[in-house]
Amino acid sequence: MYSGEFERIGKRLFAEHLVGGNFGNMSVKTGDGFFIKRTGTYLDIATEPVFVPLSGDAPKEASSEYRVHREVYTKTNHTAIVHAHPPYAVAASLVMDVIIPKDSEGEMLCPRIPVVTGAPGTQEIAGNVARALITSKLVIARGHGTFAACATLDEAYLYTSLAEHSCRVLALKRNFL
Amino acid sequence: MYSGEFERIGKRLFAEHLVGGNFGNMSVKTGDGFFIKRTGTYLDIATEPVFVPLSGDAPKEASSEYRVHREVYTKTNHTAIVHAHPPYAVAASLVMDVIIPKDSEGEMLCPRIPVVTGAPGTQEIAGNVARALITSKLVIARGHGTFAACATLDEAYLYTSLAEHSCRVLALKRNFL
Amino acid sequence: MYSGEFERIGKRLFAEHLVGGNFGNMSVKTGDGFFIKRTGTYLDIATEPVFVPLSGDAPKEASSEYRVHREVYTKTNHTAIVHAHPPYAVAASLVMDVIIPKDSEGEMLCPRIPVVTGAPGTQEIAGNVARALITSKLVIARGHGTFAACATLDEAYLYTSLAEHSCRVLALKRNFL
Amino acid sequence: MYSGEFERIGKRLFAEHLVGGNFGNMSVKTGDGFFIKRTGTYLDIATEPVFVPLSGDAPKEASSEYRVHREVYTKTNHTAIVHAHPPYAVAASLVMDVIIPKDSEGEMLCPRIPVVTGAPGTQEIAGNVARALITSKLVIARGHGTFAACATLDEAYLYTSLAEHSCRVLALKRNFL
Repeated sequence: MYSGEFERIGKRLFAEHLVGGNFGNMSVKTGDGFFIKRTGTYLDIATEPVFVPLSGDAPKEASSEYRVHREVYTKTNHTAIVHAHPPYAVAASLVMDVIIPKDSEGEMLCPRIPVVTGAPGTQEIAGNVARALITSKLVIARGHGTFAACATLDEAYLYTSLAEHSCRVLALKRNFL
Repeated sequence: MYSGEFERIGKRLFAEHLVGGNFGNMSVKTGDGFFIKRTGTYLDIATEPVFVPLSGDAPKEASSEYRVHREVYTKTNHTAIVHAHPPYAVAASLVMDVIIPKDSEGEMLCPRIPVVTGAPGTQEIAGNVARALITSKLVIARGHGTFAACATLDEAYLYTSLAEHSCRVLALKRNFL
Repeated sequence: MYSGEFERIGKRLFAEHLVGGNFGNMSVKTGDGFFIKRTGTYLDIATEPVFVPLSGDAPKEASSEYRVHREVYTKTNHTAIVHAHPPYAVAASLVMDVIIPKDSEGEMLCPRIPVVTGAPGTQEIAGNVARALITSKLVIARGHGTFAACATLDEAYLYTSLAEHSCRVLALKRNFL
Repeated sequence: MYSGEFERIGKRLFAEHLVGGNFGNMSVKTGDGFFIKRTGTYLDIATEPVFVPLSGDAPKEASSEYRVHREVYTKTNHTAIVHAHPPYAVAASLVMDVIIPKDSEGEMLCPRIPVVTGAPGTQEIAGNVARALITSKLVIARGHGTFAACATLDEAYLYTSLAEHSCRVLALKRNFL
């Protein structure tokens, strides 16, 4: 029942070049679990998401990144997550431990974007991302991508778009110095 | 009755990456007020704009940036405004007080793009933007985004597109020096 | 009768960000004149082009750049022209007098891209562009944009796309040195 | 019968700016030959591919790059190939002999991207590309473009997208140092 919503947000993520290929994923919390993108599918094409319970085994069709989503829903009050690979944000995360936006929207909505470490798919990254998202709506996993956790997919997409905008402005600023 | 027009221009702004997420807004003057984007909506999806009178309370559904639009319509003769967040223009505005295009369209249509200050949503930025737009069709609010004020939405979109083109060319020029 | 063809090529030019706003134009030679974009219209939206004779007055609906097109059709054997504003190519033209591509397609198809001068809309730029296009399918008007003159609109679009690709590769190469 | 599949993947390649104009091509192995894009057609528009046998003459409608595809299918076990011209990857290949991604997906899926030489359309480049693809799913022909060889077109598109993402992150990283 979420496939239309996932596709709608996925198309926006693709149109803004925040994700490519079959990378990226998203989920929505519901009851004692969450619906997440199926592994190997495209975010911008309607596919029925798969349900993952907050504890116990996850269905093998679930995105390999389900551990991060589960840990975030367990440790925080967020109810929707968008994970993307925006290139400026990923590049910035290779160099900085925390990103301080200079554009006005970044300054208002995410004045300090934390960068955490951990290999994709591991419990380590899941713990680090979830810990950062207790006090933030946005975190970047170093060299990997953004995790935005919010009340809705629309809000999580907004923070993803903003993360890339803020990092792009930081990078482009150099061209005018 | 403006929702189709707003959507048409909004889709062009998105396609050129002049705005992302639910950022940006636009308005059209009519009689003693103006129709402006509803707060929180997407510029590229048809939504009925909301009417804001030139004086008195604004409906709470109006874009939080309505003060800038009101001040511009009060102080100038422009009848349409497009506000966007083009990344090269925003980056340039962090560094320069006035932007001097080197491309031929910029030289012809906006040879001096003023940069003004003020926090988004405040009366200060509204005053500064409006003052600049008395003698210009284009201004950049530092670190925030462009305001193009013209006779029509199409013209305001054109100046927005041009602002980014001129700033992009200025930035890319460095790559060939 | 050319509106569909113009729209088809125009949409490709927009999708590749080779032109924005209502900038750019194109034409096709036919008999003793040519059909060219109407002034002020969008290249990516079907609009009936206007006929301009090779000599005598041009209709006022014709693109203001009609002088360049007329001079090219008078001085060369090309039968289709695409004029666009690709940002890397425009930026490169501000710095270099001739552009030497390093990518294999550029080396094969346009190993020396000439850069000419002249203000948009003048007879000076028309003469300079036409002269360059006697021995080339591609020229860049400094700070203004590309003119690709070929047998068909598809071919002229291809050279426009290639000009930007070659200039982009030249610029990005610096990032890896 | 492959035209729909080719168009579907082609549209994704265009949307991510991995190819422009009528550049790029793709093929799928079947029996003792392969179906490849027709020369001069657009990757993002449905056109019936043409069959090329593994030995003997190729039909003249076949993409001029058929020699590379034939050599890859002869020397390796891959069954689908995507060739594109992603600008960051092409630029990187002009400077480096092997590309070492720093983003997590690049590190996992293509930790060493080989760069090979040879003029487009020649047997030399065909041999070099095929040799590299014996032990890799991805190779960049210097100054020319990527060749991704996999089990399916979707997978080959994924590696193409990843090649550009990894090279883009490498380049953008410099902006934050």
